[in-house]
Amino acid sequence: MIQVGIIGGAGYTAGELIRLLIHHPEAEMNFVYSTSNAGNQLSKVHQDLVGSLDFEFTDTVNPNVDVLFLCLGHGNSVKFLEANTFSEDTKIIDLGNDFRLEADKVFNGKTFVYGLPELQREAIKKANYVANPGCFATAIQLGLLPLAEANLLNNDVHINAVTGATGAGTSLSATTHYTWRDNNFSYYKPFTHQHLGEINQSVKQLQGDFASDILFMPNRGNFSRGIFATIYTDFEGAVEDAKAMYQAFYKDAEFTFVADDFLHLKQVVNTNKCLIHLHKHGGKLLITSIIDNLLKGASGQAVENMNLMFGLEETTGLGLKATYF
Amino acid sequence: MIQVGIIGGAGYTAGELIRLLIHHPEAEMNFVYSTSNAGNQLSKVHQDLVGSLDFEFTDTVNPNVDVLFLCLGHGNSVKFLEANTFSEDTKIIDLGNDFRLEADKVFNGKTFVYGLPELQREAIKKANYVANPGCFATAIQLGLLPLAEANLLNNDVHINAVTGATGAGTSLSATTHYTWRDNNFSYYKPFTHQHLGEINQSVKQLQGDFASDILFMPNRGNFSRGIFATIYTDFEGAVEDAKAMYQAFYKDAEFTFVADDFLHLKQVVNTNKCLIHLHKHGGKLLITSIIDNLLKGASGQAVENMNLMFGLEETTGLGLKATYF
Amino acid sequence: MIQVGIIGGAGYTAGELIRLLIHHPEAEMNFVYSTSNAGNQLSKVHQDLVGSLDFEFTDTVNPNVDVLFLCLGHGNSVKFLEANTFSEDTKIIDLGNDFRLEADKVFNGKTFVYGLPELQREAIKKANYVANPGCFATAIQLGLLPLAEANLLNNDVHINAVTGATGAGTSLSATTHYTWRDNNFSYYKPFTHQHLGEINQSVKQLQGDFASDILFMPNRGNFSRGIFATIYTDFEGAVEDAKAMYQAFYKDAEFTFVADDFLHLKQVVNTNKCLIHLHKHGGKLLITSIIDNLLKGASGQAVENMNLMFGLEETTGLGLKATYF
Amino acid sequence: MIQVGIIGGAGYTAGELIRLLIHHPEAEMNFVYSTSNAGNQLSKVHQDLVGSLDFEFTDTVNPNVDVLFLCLGHGNSVKFLEANTFSEDTKIIDLGNDFRLEADKVFNGKTFVYGLPELQREAIKKANYVANPGCFATAIQLGLLPLAEANLLNNDVHINAVTGATGAGTSLSATTHYTWRDNNFSYYKPFTHQHLGEINQSVKQLQGDFASDILFMPNRGNFSRGIFATIYTDFEGAVEDAKAMYQAFYKDAEFTFVADDFLHLKQVVNTNKCLIHLHKHGGKLLITSIIDNLLKGASGQAVENMNLMFGLEETTGLGLKATYF
Repeated sequence: MIQVGIIGGAGYTAGELIRLLIHHPEAEMNFVYSTSNAGNQLSKVHQDLVGSLDFEFTDTVNPNVDVLFLCLGHGNSVKFLEANTFSEDTKIIDLGNDFRLEADKVFNGKTFVYGLPELQREAIKKANYVANPGCFATAIQLGLLPLAEANLLNNDVHINAVTGATGAGTSLSATTHYTWRDNNFSYYKPFTHQHLGEINQSVKQLQGDFASDILFMPNRGNFSRGIFATIYTDFEGAVEDAKAMYQAFYKDAEFTFVADDFLHLKQVVNTNKCLIHLHKHGGKLLITSIIDNLLKGASGQAVENMNLMFGLEETTGLGLKATYF
Repeated sequence: MIQVGIIGGAGYTAGELIRLLIHHPEAEMNFVYSTSNAGNQLSKVHQDLVGSLDFEFTDTVNPNVDVLFLCLGHGNSVKFLEANTFSEDTKIIDLGNDFRLEADKVFNGKTFVYGLPELQREAIKKANYVANPGCFATAIQLGLLPLAEANLLNNDVHINAVTGATGAGTSLSATTHYTWRDNNFSYYKPFTHQHLGEINQSVKQLQGDFASDILFMPNRGNFSRGIFATIYTDFEGAVEDAKAMYQAFYKDAEFTFVADDFLHLKQVVNTNKCLIHLHKHGGKLLITSIIDNLLKGASGQAVENMNLMFGLEETTGLGLKATYF
Repeated sequence: MIQVGIIGGAGYTAGELIRLLIHHPEAEMNFVYSTSNAGNQLSKVHQDLVGSLDFEFTDTVNPNVDVLFLCLGHGNSVKFLEANTFSEDTKIIDLGNDFRLEADKVFNGKTFVYGLPELQREAIKKANYVANPGCFATAIQLGLLPLAEANLLNNDVHINAVTGATGAGTSLSATTHYTWRDNNFSYYKPFTHQHLGEINQSVKQLQGDFASDILFMPNRGNFSRGIFATIYTDFEGAVEDAKAMYQAFYKDAEFTFVADDFLHLKQVVNTNKCLIHLHKHGGKLLITSIIDNLLKGASGQAVENMNLMFGLEETTGLGLKATYF
Repeated sequence: MIQVGIIGGAGYTAGELIRLLIHHPEAEMNFVYSTSNAGNQLSKVHQDLVGSLDFEFTDTVNPNVDVLFLCLGHGNSVKFLEANTFSEDTKIIDLGNDFRLEADKVFNGKTFVYGLPELQREAIKKANYVANPGCFATAIQLGLLPLAEANLLNNDVHINAVTGATGAGTSLSATTHYTWRDNNFSYYKPFTHQHLGEINQSVKQLQGDFASDILFMPNRGNFSRGIFATIYTDFEGAVEDAKAMYQAFYKDAEFTFVADDFLHLKQVVNTNKCLIHLHKHGGKLLITSIIDNLLKGASGQAVENMNLMFGLEETTGLGLKATYF
């Protein structure tokens, strides 16, 4: 059994990791680190776990675990790894944004591979250190990469995406207060969301001459889970051409599928799937891409990466029952 | 125009008061006191007010206003009145729970009248100081008082009520975090809610020998506004008898009505109404009572009391458009 | 008192009209027509009205009312007016889309004026027949018209808007079923929504040479009320220039205001307001426009038009308490 | 692999069964019967299944499947079994209420065992025909049975429970319309819910002299999944006594657990768990019992019963990731 350590154990992504790992047939939680909760049962924080397991948070790490998941706020992974030492054999998967960009990917001699399996499955299989993609970044890249590979992103790309309140993390804030968010809608960081960096990087990895603008409006929806992204850009071919191209690009993908019909968000909630739909209007191709922000957008993809890094079936432990309702 | 001062201007009940007063034909806001927001436009906090008025929070009070609304956390009205002096002619309406009980009603020579118009309209008309009832307390009393007046509360009273998230106030908390509350349900303080004091007091005011238990379960619903209360107790008569009794009790009520059909909460949201429905099953009378917790349960009733205290029509400024959807 | 007749009395827009008219100081409901509900109390259908009034639906019309509101499904206003005759003095306000376009505006010798007060207040004042704008159309036009007046719409216009479930009307449907819509998100009619006709028409009325594409994505949100629209297009000036232009355009508007801060939908819910925010990013101007789809987007604007047509203050009966929470 | 047939394949409980069975290691869907959808992909109806499987609805049954799940409206299981014949070896699990009561349990020579594993695991293991309990009935029985076994239900039992909109099934209805249900609350069938029959039956099975009233208020919450039930009755012992009794009763239960802290509904959503909490106030024991109405309250328990009937581990295929948010 793969021995797993989790750092930042009280947050949403750690909670989701724990929910996945307790049913994973090849991995086992070795420790869950949370200084503020040390000594408490996991189920005091992740309260759906009542009855599921007897396991306490700890404030000491086991430096010899097989794999370490960093579930920390952005910028804190670097700080944690500076302060703590692990075995040379310990693989690391960072769920934050500390190592996602080329400029950041080498740290203390460790090189982090960007962990989007649909983009670089083989590199991940060989990696010891993986930077797990951001949630918006995952949904948007999966919508754009087939076009990039075909060098067809030659005009402005218009993106509107909505995320659920879990996207804002566990901290209490005005915009995650129930009375504010209930039946409400808003946006933030118009055109300047921090995930644009990794999106541009991956697009350029496939289409070296990409020089267009990505105009991305990130919105806050009044739901808890999921990202619903619509993307459009110029496309000369027929929708069937686009569909064929996307299906070819995702023919080996275990979790990303091209859907025939218009999508709605709950088709992917509580799964590790990404569903993509293609529609043509005039000269524009409309690409819809939906994921669960906490699973394919975070902890599910992290387990997917772990599976690849340890030579397991990519889908191991990720055959999840969709909530749907 | 009645000159109004509001203390605690950044909270929910103050916000609702402001929303009511800007359309009230006989009253005018003189100042809105909030030390933390002094100098800011009201619309920075109560953001629906953008375009409606140009008015700033202040940290100084005008001691000569005609009426003062105290919109403070429980216990803070006493503190505020100890630290600030107002004209002898200034009437005071306290929305907190500092002066609701007989034991608390006299403060510095001022006697607070319990401000439930359906119970003591005449006393309110003559009062200079009014203690505005609690939200759960309003819904439940309006469900019980006709039985109490008829001396028919002679057995255990079973109450289950659900309140929206605004009932918890503006403070950020775990149970008002969107990701927790969305699609969730829970209770708190089972059988021990603080409003039981004023409920028992009013029941005994009408039925002096009342000695039964009131078993009250307060629940948190995943909605923002409103209280839905179901109450049952033994009742020997027919449902028509109960209906006749309730209609007689509320024949002069401006906001409390007996409904023929089963109720649902949104019938009263964003109104000052209380709707009551009566149903008989076996020997039990089932009484359903619904209000908007911020209006009939707080600021709407406070304006109703102001109207009475100043000799206005009770409904002045309270002809509100229901949200309904 | 203006005598009002309402046709299609059981629908959402009729319900909102009734809620407005019962508090309108200068208008009075003369009849509410609904063949399927004739003889029933209004409060059997619009159940928040319990206690508010004693008034029955009818299946006969009074042909001599002062004003008739048609609250029918699209296409049914023509049918109704073909089958029923009213006095020459009866003014008509159609809330459907039968008479909004130039090609449709003359019917049986009656000429319908497009009823967007911010665009043509004076024409409405003189009109006997008004075509009330669509909900999306209202939000979007109010976001675009100042630019059109300045002949500055010279590039593609990108619009993403989200509407609440009341936008789909009272009919039960798969996408308004609670279990589907709750915590969900989706779109419909991408780039082909029927309101594009009236939007283009009004833009061209101000900017005769307008020839750009309006790319409009209409989305379904999991809330009941409101439209949140974001619009962006090329704009060379500074954001302050845009703000000055919008404030000038709306200086006489009673319900449309330019807001300084980012908007969220609940700022306008249950009001007749439109709030607009302007933001500049690179060469793009981002315009946010929000309304309550049932009020400024339907029944509230219909009353606003009635006020103008009858020489009343535009705001009469529309000083509504925002729900906000 | 156990060959499974599902009747009524387009409904909610069938959808949940399919979601469970596609990940069940020992069972395999042989056919999914739905006359109205015959020939369509399952994913056209259960749209989260896009990408998960290639499988069509059928309008013909395979009479030799190992187990048949009846997911039909109440009363239709009898009709279906009268019209269709299956092998003597085909086990049947009925999710409707046709065979739950003693008076109904024998049909065409088949005897249906009431399928609540916590009550009669051994009988289910030997059964060929199982009547799966109702959703409210499951939550309430699991809250009451330990007291019944100890013969301690000797006074009125007061129950208030809230169910999500999926409890009302797939049919479109006024009370499951989004605009009605959103942010709303209501009840139905006060004190007369049809599940009282099976609840009383199970209680009497353990406490033969049970003769008290069960006063059950069923409520509609504005959420999609789950049942939150509070129950109270007289209890002389300490809360620790109650806890010990419940823990003993459920010591072999795989899905029912006694929790130390107050509960909230989302602790069990998308799991097959029942969580129970005990609290003492005065002479009353307050029992809280929560389940997912579609899983432990329907399809999850049906799979649990299948596992028992086929000699599998009770938990097989039911190690579900909670949604939690």
